[in-house]
Amino acid sequence: MITVLFADQAENWTRYEAPLHVAFAEIGMEVNLIYETDEPEAVDYVVYAPSGPVSDFGPYVNLKAVLSLWAGVEKIEGNASIQVPLCRMVDEGLSEGMVEWVTGHILRHHLGMDAHIFGQDGEWRNDTVPPLARDRSVGFLGLGALGLDCAKAAMGLGFNVLGWSRSLKTVEGVSTFAGVDGLREMLGKCQIVVLLLPDTADTQNVLNPETLDLLPDGAFIINPGRGPLIDDAALLNALDTGKIAHATLDVFRVEPLPAEHPFWAHPKVTVTPHIASDTRPSSASRTIAENIRRGEAGEPFLYTVDRTAGY
Amino acid sequence: MITVLFADQAENWTRYEAPLHVAFAEIGMEVNLIYETDEPEAVDYVVYAPSGPVSDFGPYVNLKAVLSLWAGVEKIEGNASIQVPLCRMVDEGLSEGMVEWVTGHILRHHLGMDAHIFGQDGEWRNDTVPPLARDRSVGFLGLGALGLDCAKAAMGLGFNVLGWSRSLKTVEGVSTFAGVDGLREMLGKCQIVVLLLPDTADTQNVLNPETLDLLPDGAFIINPGRGPLIDDAALLNALDTGKIAHATLDVFRVEPLPAEHPFWAHPKVTVTPHIASDTRPSSASRTIAENIRRGEAGEPFLYTVDRTAGY
Repeated sequence: MITVLFADQAENWTRYEAPLHVAFAEIGMEVNLIYETDEPEAVDYVVYAPSGPVSDFGPYVNLKAVLSLWAGVEKIEGNASIQVPLCRMVDEGLSEGMVEWVTGHILRHHLGMDAHIFGQDGEWRNDTVPPLARDRSVGFLGLGALGLDCAKAAMGLGFNVLGWSRSLKTVEGVSTFAGVDGLREMLGKCQIVVLLLPDTADTQNVLNPETLDLLPDGAFIINPGRGPLIDDAALLNALDTGKIAHATLDVFRVEPLPAEHPFWAHPKVTVTPHIASDTRPSSASRTIAENIRRGEAGEPFLYTVDRTAGY
Repeated sequence: MITVLFADQAENWTRYEAPLHVAFAEIGMEVNLIYETDEPEAVDYVVYAPSGPVSDFGPYVNLKAVLSLWAGVEKIEGNASIQVPLCRMVDEGLSEGMVEWVTGHILRHHLGMDAHIFGQDGEWRNDTVPPLARDRSVGFLGLGALGLDCAKAAMGLGFNVLGWSRSLKTVEGVSTFAGVDGLREMLGKCQIVVLLLPDTADTQNVLNPETLDLLPDGAFIINPGRGPLIDDAALLNALDTGKIAHATLDVFRVEPLPAEHPFWAHPKVTVTPHIASDTRPSSASRTIAENIRRGEAGEPFLYTVDRTAGY
């Protein structure tokens, strides 16, 4: 039986132990899955994270591959003690989770759910019916893989979907915009704005005093992208004037968001703790199990890191 | 000129008067649209809702049809004073709105949103990530038009969808069940249960002490269907024992839900005031105008109620 060492911190072992067993069982593999060992020479595969205890792979003399739990491998790819294939994490659950979080918060604001979640006081408030999704406009800043998936989910629910990207894209069913003028034009039409841009010199503070002012009164902002996309002070001001009805933010310039940051206490801000696109144990475990299956079957690994290129 | 009496409460007259005039104008009909009358014998059509002032149709001796504003007609179908066709409301906006409300609350519970909506206290709680939709099972009790539309939306987001109906239906992508044994079998698999059954003698208290106990621990219940589908006391007990994690209820045995009802104050219950499928005045007015046009042209009415079947 092969031995797989899970080399991440204890709380992630708690999250991953059962899903890994499920994933191995699903593909019919019997595996000795361990969290700590005194016999590194008995280990066939290491499931690795930079937050875990293993950094010197020298004692793992019979290792067949290192399987990263993280998509980003910049903290390990230069590790000279690794003499075997290194595979990064590709988790299809990450994109699915993002779509679920974004769609859920779009619908939350669209339906005005908070009024009911907070309003359990015996008063029957049925005098305002929200518009239908087809009468609500949702704009996505960023039409990369994640932005497109979220835009398609919103379209599937009937929303009127707009999208902005640096260079113009054509997406069936989406009104697309590009460039600085396109951004200004689109923002004027968005009752709900979702930020899914990368963090670059060009995208920082894309929502600033001037662009926030272009939005329709009472717009909602949802940011699962990157913290620096928003000028925090400008957003707080726009919330206080009523220009922006609510902001639901998953990413911040400093994380964890400091307890004294005004976002926490602001009644029109919802902070979620960078959970919109977390790697999911169930799907990530399937990726790991599949690569171990491939290794044992003599098939090429998936998602191997080309370490000759840079080092 | 024909006379149409709008027989619902005053606030709905405010919402409907203009859209009805628009809808009649759209199909080129001149109509005497009234809200109150001392001459019931002059009325050609009654636009009816149970919340309105008319329950005895005897004085409306020249009536041609009763046009319900509500999709559910259980409060009127047994009314022996109606001697003319009774048509229920089929409002395409109603179905869209239902899908949006149901999908929104499924995602709310799936994502555990309330912990963040209420937890704006400076504590960064990122230790629990919800499962993906594909690892979450959502069961629909009732696979009529509304149930099917909601089930399809849930499938579109990746949920594992199950459905129960009185006689077995085949729906692509949905695990379907029927009958008493099928109900028991399905409930054991549903982490989220959505009730979209009609209110009949057979469906009353479909969720009762015994069936609630079949659900997985920590299940969520969403009821946009009819109040009597749930045994209120049994639900409260299951919430108190922790068997059920939360119930989001839009319909009740008595509406408005009385301020002293324990649902209001219960921390694991969200009351919404019968808004999940509120008829939208613009689209509903078109349905009513079209049926009056048909009546005057001698064409068969749409959506007539077979008053022997129950719905």
